[in-house]
Amino acid sequence: MVPSPIDHQHWGCGTAIMADISTRQSDASLLIAWQLKGRRVLVVGGGDVASGRINHVLVAGAKVTVVSPSEGLHPLTKKHIDASDRITYYDRVFDPKDLDGVDMVLTAIDDVDISRDIAAKCRALHIPVNVADDPPCCDFYFGSQIRQGPLQILVSTNGQGPKLANIIRRKIEESIPKGAGEAIEKVGLLREKLKERAPGVGGDVSKRRMKWMIELCTAWEMDELALLNDEKMERMLVEGWDKNLVLSPEELGARSNDPA
Amino acid sequence: MVPSPIDHQHWGCGTAIMADISTRQSDASLLIAWQLKGRRVLVVGGGDVASGRINHVLVAGAKVTVVSPSEGLHPLTKKHIDASDRITYYDRVFDPKDLDGVDMVLTAIDDVDISRDIAAKCRALHIPVNVADDPPCCDFYFGSQIRQGPLQILVSTNGQGPKLANIIRRKIEESIPKGAGEAIEKVGLLREKLKERAPGVGGDVSKRRMKWMIELCTAWEMDELALLNDEKMERMLVEGWDKNLVLSPEELGARSNDPA
Repeated sequence: MVPSPIDHQHWGCGTAIMADISTRQSDASLLIAWQLKGRRVLVVGGGDVASGRINHVLVAGAKVTVVSPSEGLHPLTKKHIDASDRITYYDRVFDPKDLDGVDMVLTAIDDVDISRDIAAKCRALHIPVNVADDPPCCDFYFGSQIRQGPLQILVSTNGQGPKLANIIRRKIEESIPKGAGEAIEKVGLLREKLKERAPGVGGDVSKRRMKWMIELCTAWEMDELALLNDEKMERMLVEGWDKNLVLSPEELGARSNDPA
Repeated sequence: MVPSPIDHQHWGCGTAIMADISTRQSDASLLIAWQLKGRRVLVVGGGDVASGRINHVLVAGAKVTVVSPSEGLHPLTKKHIDASDRITYYDRVFDPKDLDGVDMVLTAIDDVDISRDIAAKCRALHIPVNVADDPPCCDFYFGSQIRQGPLQILVSTNGQGPKLANIIRRKIEESIPKGAGEAIEKVGLLREKLKERAPGVGGDVSKRRMKWMIELCTAWEMDELALLNDEKMERMLVEGWDKNLVLSPEELGARSNDPA
């Protein structure tokens, strides 16, 4: 389809790495939270898998370019393209120029040779790449995910059991403490307020802040932390932090008074 | 410490991105499983935080270079350096040449200016970088992690509540079905055997394999899957797959006969 000067070379993604896949499975991945806000992500392909990828990177704040002939677009991909002002869509096959200025590449097309060629080009340009269904060509894998506000959880079986990853994800979802997402938001907000009240990076004040926050998070249940509001945070700082104390939920009336 | 032509510029990691941090917090990260096997990771710094980073990337199969004056080495970092043949150690401060041929950079030093200078250099070279305690300079964050064999779980609060991430991680650990890690290993092995028996990429055979594996993983409990051995897998394929059936644990005697 797309003429390429390095077709059939597949370097960085061919035999050498292929031979490596069985040993790779016994090793761990490095699980990380990648920052995509404002970064440019190229998605090659527009089918079912591509639509899921597009959703993932949009939620993470990326600017997305989708390259795919329109006849191959999944309804969900079309919906994304129509709904988001952060997607640029080109109705054609991949062109090597698409890689200019791109921060991450995701391919989800049926042609193995073209996918591998794209992966090799990405590697030469130091652009992280994921090739759907072709682990040896991937710099990173996706996994089963949970999101509750600022809380995000990734379940990876390192490619060995995608269905089991889903089953485990559901068990994990049930185990997440009630109000966890909201608790994290409130604690993040309180930490911001505390930093304004007792500023400084590093040194003793930083350590004291960290210790106080840990004590608070240990003494309070998630659903109690979730009930914190501006007024309670203010009291927490004035009656707590300033006196080197961590108030209990009872002392702040965070258990009974505020059903929100 | 290290003279640098771009000190005080902090481009790619200075004011512009700083202003962005508050909005960034409302966005999700892209959680991914990064592949480091055989890749070169540079760790700048040798203290407490650095020792944790070194452990993470060693487990993921990386070749690690550690650059840190020996007087700053944490005992755990020393232990890693002495114990692993995949670590190269330099007793000195960072030099820009350290970035040659590197696939990922992690800094964990106290000097903010030097850290940001390293981050800017990495960005210019398209090398993913994490700067400890300086989120705006990071291409990715770490989080609270669980590992049970091939099962890996990442809990991220997107920087808002590290202590809560730890608490949630512990709850999740309790919720992981018994034998999950071993079940995933066995299912991965069975899938390999099935691919040998019914080879082919894409198309009908691929779909039939996937459907059969999903049925099996749904019908069997984790601790039953964990009991699979070579003999049981062979029967599963001959008496199950070949006849288009998924045998139950009872039919295979995976519940009572084999307490291993």
